[in-house]
Amino acid sequence: MINLSYRKKVVDSWFSYLQNLICKEFESLEGKKKFLKREWYKKDRKEGGGVSYLLTEGNVFEKVGVNKSTVSGKFKKEFRSKILGAQKDGKYWASGVSVVAHMKNPKIPALHFNTRYIVTTKEWFGGGMDATPSINDTKEKELIQKLLKKVCLNNKKNYKKYKLWCDKYFYLPHRKEIRGIGGIFFDYEKENWVKNFKFVREVGFTFIDISKKVIERKKKVKWTKKDKEKQLLKRGRYVEFNLLYDRGTKFGLNSGGNTESILMSLPPLARWK
Amino acid sequence: MINLSYRKKVVDSWFSYLQNLICKEFESLEGKKKFLKREWYKKDRKEGGGVSYLLTEGNVFEKVGVNKSTVSGKFKKEFRSKILGAQKDGKYWASGVSVVAHMKNPKIPALHFNTRYIVTTKEWFGGGMDATPSINDTKEKELIQKLLKKVCLNNKKNYKKYKLWCDKYFYLPHRKEIRGIGGIFFDYEKENWVKNFKFVREVGFTFIDISKKVIERKKKVKWTKKDKEKQLLKRGRYVEFNLLYDRGTKFGLNSGGNTESILMSLPPLARWK
Repeated sequence: MINLSYRKKVVDSWFSYLQNLICKEFESLEGKKKFLKREWYKKDRKEGGGVSYLLTEGNVFEKVGVNKSTVSGKFKKEFRSKILGAQKDGKYWASGVSVVAHMKNPKIPALHFNTRYIVTTKEWFGGGMDATPSINDTKEKELIQKLLKKVCLNNKKNYKKYKLWCDKYFYLPHRKEIRGIGGIFFDYEKENWVKNFKFVREVGFTFIDISKKVIERKKKVKWTKKDKEKQLLKRGRYVEFNLLYDRGTKFGLNSGGNTESILMSLPPLARWK
Repeated sequence: MINLSYRKKVVDSWFSYLQNLICKEFESLEGKKKFLKREWYKKDRKEGGGVSYLLTEGNVFEKVGVNKSTVSGKFKKEFRSKILGAQKDGKYWASGVSVVAHMKNPKIPALHFNTRYIVTTKEWFGGGMDATPSINDTKEKELIQKLLKKVCLNNKKNYKKYKLWCDKYFYLPHRKEIRGIGGIFFDYEKENWVKNFKFVREVGFTFIDISKKVIERKKKVKWTKKDKEKQLLKRGRYVEFNLLYDRGTKFGLNSGGNTESILMSLPPLARWK
């Protein structure tokens, strides 16, 4: 039999480490501002909680949230049929890190990253990362895709499948638009725990690597008011996706998660025409 | 037997008249900018369509949309159980006017109004109006409530019930906050068609009356950058409500409505901390 409590402990501790690493790397990219830490608890600590790091009004980051949470509980009945392995009694345990970075410079794309480990009567890893530029940049797109391809190849994962999954997931049907330029998205990775966990760790490192490269390429590139307007409109679409369709947001709000942390993904400022 | 085709014609024509009246009154309040008209059709005019009026970057209105649509069709199967009288074959006919006004001056509340007539195997009127200030103003609240009370009383409608309905409807559970200061909200008004239609017409006039009074009271009142920031944050909550919970938005996006018109309710600019 698998030792689930060992797995939970190791994964939880990895996510804490990754969160701290991302914050350190982002602060060194940022230069000006530091993250503020906030802790929250679910049902008086009886069902876990989380740690949120938020940095706003920086030189690089207009707003970036780095959240880690480890929670447990029982899904409401109407929600159980939608979660793998939760049909029977609705019990779950979940741990993960998620990051959304909205940049000051509209020439740098918004970046999103998430990895998670979920245990119901089944257990699996999921997550991914993707980029949302307001202004097209073929070289940047190729750079991101090259690094995502590499981490998949190194772990014998199907990049094409994950890329397509991402394109399908981050889609706004009412606009007939893709949210950004895609990335990778995967879920229900449950066969080989050791290998999948290694993959999830490497996707974490790849996210840091991509963020550094993408930000450093353009940190000092000049931008205009018109560029900013484009970014604000793109952010409007980002809000629409997250509130209308995102499963993570729905999952969070439906499972008694911390509203402030869940909606940390929303941009600092957004425009609608 | 009731003459449904007569009712549909009369109601549709009232809504067109009301839309034009609101636009005229708003333009005269505005002074600077004019509405731009846009027409759209559902399924190549086979299932109706609508007329949208949008005014942006005005002296009074930062963004105001006045939409009228008359559409028909069949609800998707998964949606039928949620609509009164649509269980059998999902057929519907619907006509209505909706208005959302986001003000330049943060001391003037955002105003929302909607009245509609829906026909399935049942037929009924619904709608209401409500205000969302970013800064509390007791006198303004009393003024709005007085006029709404009056229109209910004149039509032998239960103001308290409609007020409570509004408070319950415009509620953000994840924030434990009411969207604004409320107003009135009613639905399934189906018993006496003639009287209900009269009530709906008078709610339309009352909305114009309230808008004029509320705007003229504060049109020239000075505001600060801090007031504007409060307004932008309040607008963030407005976006959250409309995309996460609003039935009108879901109805529209689920029934093949016009995305641009449906999301005209979203503010020109919104902030999240």
